[in-house]
Amino acid sequence: MSDIYEVMSILRAVRRLKPDPVPHDVLQRVLQAAAWAPTGGNVQPFRIVAVTASEQKQAIQKLYDEEWAKYTTWHRKAIPGMEEPQKSATEKMVRAGDYLAANMHTTPVILVFCFNPDNMAITDSDLGRPSVVGGGSVYTAVQNVMLACVEEGLGCVLTTLLCYREAEVKAILNIPDNWYTCAHVPIGYPVLKGHGPINRRPVDKLVYANSWGEAWS
Amino acid sequence: MSDIYEVMSILRAVRRLKPDPVPHDVLQRVLQAAAWAPTGGNVQPFRIVAVTASEQKQAIQKLYDEEWAKYTTWHRKAIPGMEEPQKSATEKMVRAGDYLAANMHTTPVILVFCFNPDNMAITDSDLGRPSVVGGGSVYTAVQNVMLACVEEGLGCVLTTLLCYREAEVKAILNIPDNWYTCAHVPIGYPVLKGHGPINRRPVDKLVYANSWGEAWS
Repeated sequence: MSDIYEVMSILRAVRRLKPDPVPHDVLQRVLQAAAWAPTGGNVQPFRIVAVTASEQKQAIQKLYDEEWAKYTTWHRKAIPGMEEPQKSATEKMVRAGDYLAANMHTTPVILVFCFNPDNMAITDSDLGRPSVVGGGSVYTAVQNVMLACVEEGLGCVLTTLLCYREAEVKAILNIPDNWYTCAHVPIGYPVLKGHGPINRRPVDKLVYANSWGEAWS
Repeated sequence: MSDIYEVMSILRAVRRLKPDPVPHDVLQRVLQAAAWAPTGGNVQPFRIVAVTASEQKQAIQKLYDEEWAKYTTWHRKAIPGMEEPQKSATEKMVRAGDYLAANMHTTPVILVFCFNPDNMAITDSDLGRPSVVGGGSVYTAVQNVMLACVEEGLGCVLTTLLCYREAEVKAILNIPDNWYTCAHVPIGYPVLKGHGPINRRPVDKLVYANSWGEAWS
């Protein structure tokens, strides 16, 4: 039993995951955490496909590996010209991500979060800017899952790159036409230290008092 | 210090909030929880305007009250024809929401979450279906805030109705052109019992094994 603030304060992207299986009761608690999450109108417009079978994991790994390579093309070119600490941080992220991209299929489980927009009240769909509100009924569950992973000593990372290959992922997992994908969370015991210290802006840089730009503290 | 699973399992929409002030150190812990949340590329593309001033809260309450009335027009008409337990649940939700809509300005603080899509990699923006991925870098923080509220004995509820009035909310809080709103979370000590038992689908109804529709357990 951990303090929730401690759990939140060490949740970081863990991309090196062992192939060791996750006991069913542990995974069940992680999935129960998802089920508890609040959603708009308590509709729970999300489903999770928990991928443990080799064939599906391999098909997903292949797609992820391709998208990761594309996504990091810019990073790899830019690293030599970066200054510290950004340079080391980016190198570390790319190396860890390379490991995940090469080993996605050996992680014991990949949770693929799906959603159905027909069951969501998307209040920001007609504002002429990117809509995000649908995410309010899915990423609450994703966050619960990741916090549960910390509690259980499991590594995990929220990835969304596979949305670029949604049609293929849907075919692999037999996801119906009116359901879509929005998060792919590989889970497993960490190869290295797992969750730990994180680097975030302090509250004062993220929070304003009553009016944009007005100091909070 | 509470078990994180217990915290998750009692987080529910608390819409009746006392005007009693929230001590600064308590609010600071709630805001720190937001700051810890993971975001895509660790960019933290969100900001929070913490609204405690009467003038701004009153302006927000007026808008919320109007949108709540519109949103619940259907519910109010439908209740007489509903069957139990949906009827009681809907009546309860509408009554509690009426309280919030009438008293939004007396809650001690309203957290308005803002995001900047220019700082987000929105991987599902060109799929010809509603995009939600931007929410992956904001609602993780919103969920942390709500879990922190449970830990602190504070009531809260995630609302998104005010996105319908985004232009007006932005004017009230001086939010710049390229930042948008996606969650409005009133926070305060509960009038009634606050967080408690929730009604959610069991894991088996939300999770499939390897292929859509395949039983998990």
